[in-house]
Amino acid sequence: MNEPAPIDSREFRSALGTFTTGVTIVTARDPDGRAVGVTANSFNSVSLNPPMILWSLAKSARSLATFEAARYWAVHILAANQDDLSTRFARSGDDKFAGLQSEAGLGDTPLLMNCTSRLQCKTAFRYEGGDHVIFVGEVIAFDRNDLPPLVFHGGQYAVAARKTEPRLLSGDSPHDSDITFGADFLGYLLWRADRHFRVRVVAPLEAHGLDPDSFMTLALLLHRDGRSAEQLSWGLEQLGLVGLAQNLQAFTARGWVRLEGNGPTAHAWLTEAGRDVVLHIHAASKAIESDLLGRLDPGEALAFKHLLRRFIVQTDGGMAHPWQSAKNSDPEP
Amino acid sequence: MNEPAPIDSREFRSALGTFTTGVTIVTARDPDGRAVGVTANSFNSVSLNPPMILWSLAKSARSLATFEAARYWAVHILAANQDDLSTRFARSGDDKFAGLQSEAGLGDTPLLMNCTSRLQCKTAFRYEGGDHVIFVGEVIAFDRNDLPPLVFHGGQYAVAARKTEPRLLSGDSPHDSDITFGADFLGYLLWRADRHFRVRVVAPLEAHGLDPDSFMTLALLLHRDGRSAEQLSWGLEQLGLVGLAQNLQAFTARGWVRLEGNGPTAHAWLTEAGRDVVLHIHAASKAIESDLLGRLDPGEALAFKHLLRRFIVQTDGGMAHPWQSAKNSDPEP
Repeated sequence: MNEPAPIDSREFRSALGTFTTGVTIVTARDPDGRAVGVTANSFNSVSLNPPMILWSLAKSARSLATFEAARYWAVHILAANQDDLSTRFARSGDDKFAGLQSEAGLGDTPLLMNCTSRLQCKTAFRYEGGDHVIFVGEVIAFDRNDLPPLVFHGGQYAVAARKTEPRLLSGDSPHDSDITFGADFLGYLLWRADRHFRVRVVAPLEAHGLDPDSFMTLALLLHRDGRSAEQLSWGLEQLGLVGLAQNLQAFTARGWVRLEGNGPTAHAWLTEAGRDVVLHIHAASKAIESDLLGRLDPGEALAFKHLLRRFIVQTDGGMAHPWQSAKNSDPEP
Repeated sequence: MNEPAPIDSREFRSALGTFTTGVTIVTARDPDGRAVGVTANSFNSVSLNPPMILWSLAKSARSLATFEAARYWAVHILAANQDDLSTRFARSGDDKFAGLQSEAGLGDTPLLMNCTSRLQCKTAFRYEGGDHVIFVGEVIAFDRNDLPPLVFHGGQYAVAARKTEPRLLSGDSPHDSDITFGADFLGYLLWRADRHFRVRVVAPLEAHGLDPDSFMTLALLLHRDGRSAEQLSWGLEQLGLVGLAQNLQAFTARGWVRLEGNGPTAHAWLTEAGRDVVLHIHAASKAIESDLLGRLDPGEALAFKHLLRRFIVQTDGGMAHPWQSAKNSDPEP
């Protein structure tokens, strides 16, 4: 890279995109009382004493004159669930605030709600910055809450997750991982994470004489009542579960399932008692979920679920959702 | 927040910390030829045309005079595995570059290796910014690679993960999730993610007449050869696995395990043939891992493993690692 070449704008954008940032919306009110706001990820801190932050705005922005004239403006650091708001304020348009709840800040600056942090600023300096103007603001007031923040990374919305050591527990030997299924092996991590959940649902399941796999059959019925055994079997086989016939018989004997017909074409219906069992275990499982996710930071919990979903979607490889409408030949009940 | 109160520095830092950023090291060379470098997350983009970026440096920094005198300096956007480098350059000290490989950039500026991106800049402006100086640089040259970047978030190193929709597949009904185990239920996500790995190891396992659970016994022996059946059993029970005795008998019959003694005090050793089986399946599993993780972005793959580890550690609740030295009474072989 030692021979400077002309800068390619697209490549330059890509390189800048490797710098992860939060996402902000900066708002102000123009002399006519109209609220303006723009999405910006060019925000950063500058000074602690006096408290100062900065952001930059394109000289071509329609709101430039308003921000140049405004004595006060507010930076909103967006929460992870505010990507729609970010997209709305990133577009040009007159009605960005339409339907949005806001409150009045310093100089009647519109303050958006439910953000991770809000910084109310007075312009300290405006600086030349190429095709942008750099606004440096002195922070006059701020507030924050514990919502996990939205992140922008490589041109996409993201969430941030705390970095951890590859070592899991005192007994782990990360240096052994070349020859063993150590703490860095995905199969082990997935298996173990799942196991940490499963061991906790054993008690509520056993209270009903169930194990996790047989419970899946029952849960499947809650979602798709009235399926034929053949159709149920297809859904379960998608996830490598077998033994449906025995389960259905046992559930029928316990009064949880009502079968109509015989053999593979028999249709299975959840009885009220069966539904109670599923919902009871469901409630217990939700409580376990809250407990386990509560041991992560809110942002981590969010990121963890996002990544599990993304992994599942990306590795699906034709494995159907067991609860989706099964084969093409499968009529909706 | 409408009544401005004096700004509390610690609270202000916390509010700023909710804005996630990448991490950079900025380097320059002073007139005496000495290399200087500082860690900064106050970096941001400013202008595309001309290409400009900015960062700020505390007026109290020892390297301030060097950066003020330098015609050129370089911003390194750090990769996810460079947190040690970040910590090294965040401390004050004279020997920050000791033992580090670097190359010479514009104006002999030291360029660090294996970063996500590097931007070589010429000072365009230096601006007043409270207790910091704002450096605006025109980017003269840059390069980047595909390494996932390091992220700083809430005062800690982090990694970024793409945000996903709560919907998994066309058959999902996220709006049903209040009453069913839908795509937003952690237990289902963990179970399904694990299942996506497991279904792929079925073939290599079945080629050896094994299933995942019985294979764990064999893998455990690779790690901790010469354990007694009692000790192995303890390790497996930590993860809810049973049926050790039958497995050991079957493995012995197939010549994979050699037993010394009888009953619970018998010690089990992996034979060479048994070791071959474990390593063969291990290699197949590693290939599956590469395939599956390759379907995520590199940064996502990293974040996913980090979060699985963090979840496991945080939810461990006394569940021991099956491979760690078992009970107190368990002598090392």
